[in-house]
Amino acid sequence: MTDLTIVAFAGSLRRASFNRGLIRAAVAAAPPGSHIEVIDLRPIPMFDQDLEDLGEPPAVAAFKQAIARADALLVATPEYNHGVPGLLKNALDWASRPRASSPLMDKPVAIMGASSGRGSTARAQAQLREAFVFTGACVMPQPEVLVGSAASLFDDDGDLTDAGTRASIAQLVEALLAWTDRLRLQPAA
Amino acid sequence: MTDLTIVAFAGSLRRASFNRGLIRAAVAAAPPGSHIEVIDLRPIPMFDQDLEDLGEPPAVAAFKQAIARADALLVATPEYNHGVPGLLKNALDWASRPRASSPLMDKPVAIMGASSGRGSTARAQAQLREAFVFTGACVMPQPEVLVGSAASLFDDDGDLTDAGTRASIAQLVEALLAWTDRLRLQPAA
Amino acid sequence: MTDLTIVAFAGSLRRASFNRGLIRAAVAAAPPGSHIEVIDLRPIPMFDQDLEDLGEPPAVAAFKQAIARADALLVATPEYNHGVPGLLKNALDWASRPRASSPLMDKPVAIMGASSGRGSTARAQAQLREAFVFTGACVMPQPEVLVGSAASLFDDDGDLTDAGTRASIAQLVEALLAWTDRLRLQPAA
Amino acid sequence: MTDLTIVAFAGSLRRASFNRGLIRAAVAAAPPGSHIEVIDLRPIPMFDQDLEDLGEPPAVAAFKQAIARADALLVATPEYNHGVPGLLKNALDWASRPRASSPLMDKPVAIMGASSGRGSTARAQAQLREAFVFTGACVMPQPEVLVGSAASLFDDDGDLTDAGTRASIAQLVEALLAWTDRLRLQPAA
Repeated sequence: MTDLTIVAFAGSLRRASFNRGLIRAAVAAAPPGSHIEVIDLRPIPMFDQDLEDLGEPPAVAAFKQAIARADALLVATPEYNHGVPGLLKNALDWASRPRASSPLMDKPVAIMGASSGRGSTARAQAQLREAFVFTGACVMPQPEVLVGSAASLFDDDGDLTDAGTRASIAQLVEALLAWTDRLRLQPAA
Repeated sequence: MTDLTIVAFAGSLRRASFNRGLIRAAVAAAPPGSHIEVIDLRPIPMFDQDLEDLGEPPAVAAFKQAIARADALLVATPEYNHGVPGLLKNALDWASRPRASSPLMDKPVAIMGASSGRGSTARAQAQLREAFVFTGACVMPQPEVLVGSAASLFDDDGDLTDAGTRASIAQLVEALLAWTDRLRLQPAA
Repeated sequence: MTDLTIVAFAGSLRRASFNRGLIRAAVAAAPPGSHIEVIDLRPIPMFDQDLEDLGEPPAVAAFKQAIARADALLVATPEYNHGVPGLLKNALDWASRPRASSPLMDKPVAIMGASSGRGSTARAQAQLREAFVFTGACVMPQPEVLVGSAASLFDDDGDLTDAGTRASIAQLVEALLAWTDRLRLQPAA
Repeated sequence: MTDLTIVAFAGSLRRASFNRGLIRAAVAAAPPGSHIEVIDLRPIPMFDQDLEDLGEPPAVAAFKQAIARADALLVATPEYNHGVPGLLKNALDWASRPRASSPLMDKPVAIMGASSGRGSTARAQAQLREAFVFTGACVMPQPEVLVGSAASLFDDDGDLTDAGTRASIAQLVEALLAWTDRLRLQPAA
């Protein structure tokens, strides 16, 4: 396994967000030979095709370039109203266009999520997987990381304090690296 | 049936959007004794709980007030990457908070959608219905309006030119008015 | 509110099923002026349109008649592989046909579910709501009853032993009765 | 690419089913070096954990063995009431158990579907993908084959008569073979 770069982002802007905390925990868990780069979705404007027709906004171009240079993506999603937050879906919708040259095509992806409520982001994760289907990204089926009752597992700064959850995230990162390695197109012998 | 006000919005910012065209067709189809007010989602910022904690942004307050004074909602959704556009989900997530006083609670809602692709917004509509579940809104089950092959049914300005689709929208508006009337809490006899 | 009959069924055949336990808890919680009739889905064969064309199987006819005479439905669903069990979906698919005369049309419905896993039947309940959309049934949006960690809340016979869950079920039944009353078509004055 | 065996099944029992027709079209399209074995889901009983505890029914054991010896799976699904037919979900639920030794784990899968209605099996395919997530199967993201307006594309025996759809199925089979080859765990050098 050669050096791999994972680009990671969370579907929340809140400073003490649980899901940004999940991403920081993943960064800390990245094994030697891998590196996780964290992207902030805040600068990405709301999608508007008329705006796109005038030229890709710089924040969108930067986001797409980050995805293009990544070997894999790691996404942490909250669940709002039984679904994916607008922030996260909006960023992916920009990145998916134009479809023929989208950097999401064929990209290995892992998904995780934390919420304080029942359901544990199950529905948001399902919708996120479904969004990636159309982009042609290759979302890893297992393991799944659904973190419920988040208020008891993170501190007031949104830093993960639970060892069991930390271990799950480390396993997810390891599995994503293996999935990425496995999906590489093999050179002709 | 007394006078009813429907507040309507589309999940697209594009000037010639098919879904904005669906909304205009609904406005034209509103029968006597009803009125459809169209809301533009563009001014609503990306959700950020830290921002919310500083006080509700004016565009959000205006959106919530429009919902509160409506007897019912009519939503037109495109489908992006097999799901709801970020723009639309973001607006609903703002409107759903705080949950105890959200104007979405108990609100009658009808959903429609147009797309050029296969699937005809089926998945976006399903996700939108699921979002409304958590808000306590009462989404009308039938009829459903899924408009596929939209490019052949609208002109270059996004105005609906197909008579059959226009009739479906008129039926949807009629059904929403009846659904709204039916759901009204009955006064004690 | 006049006397109301709720027909209830669970999406599991297991004798000690948590979801059959939820249904028994609902029966015990039905307030005066209401009655819950429990239906067993076991006799319903696998759907086959060629079989249907030969005449509706007796178990299907009985199921549809039970739905027709009910004022409302109460469904308890496990979650298998992130979705609705085949048993439950199969029964509803039979009941939905032929569409023009299906007893599901316009029927008030409440959904609940119990599972031992993470996700707490969130995805199964979402799929079940979506199935009812096409049938024209009126699924109550709130409250939702998602029972996770079920192994600690039920005894070995599948009887619910947790007082908090019992209270949630009683609230769900009360809300379903109110929803049913509210949805009744009003007689002309 | 060495010889590959695909095991295929449709979520319908109807003799002239469109989806059984899709499977027959796939069989005809299998390129040299591949072979598609068709499985009939009819003998598989309704899932019942008490029955499973008495020993796996022979039809279930045969289904699981067919999956185990397959290099990949190809599934054709109708859409009933906005979702997966009970028949198909039931078969997969049996095959997913016990989870630690399920033959679905890590299995390459492709999905297609035909329906006469709007939506073109979009929701059924989404639910099917979500079911496979929990099993650890690796569902190919693209291409997608959603066949709408099926009544005009198949003859009275359910045989596909449309050349364009036939070409889409041939592409799907080719892509599944490439996906299967790519996912093989590489031997150490």
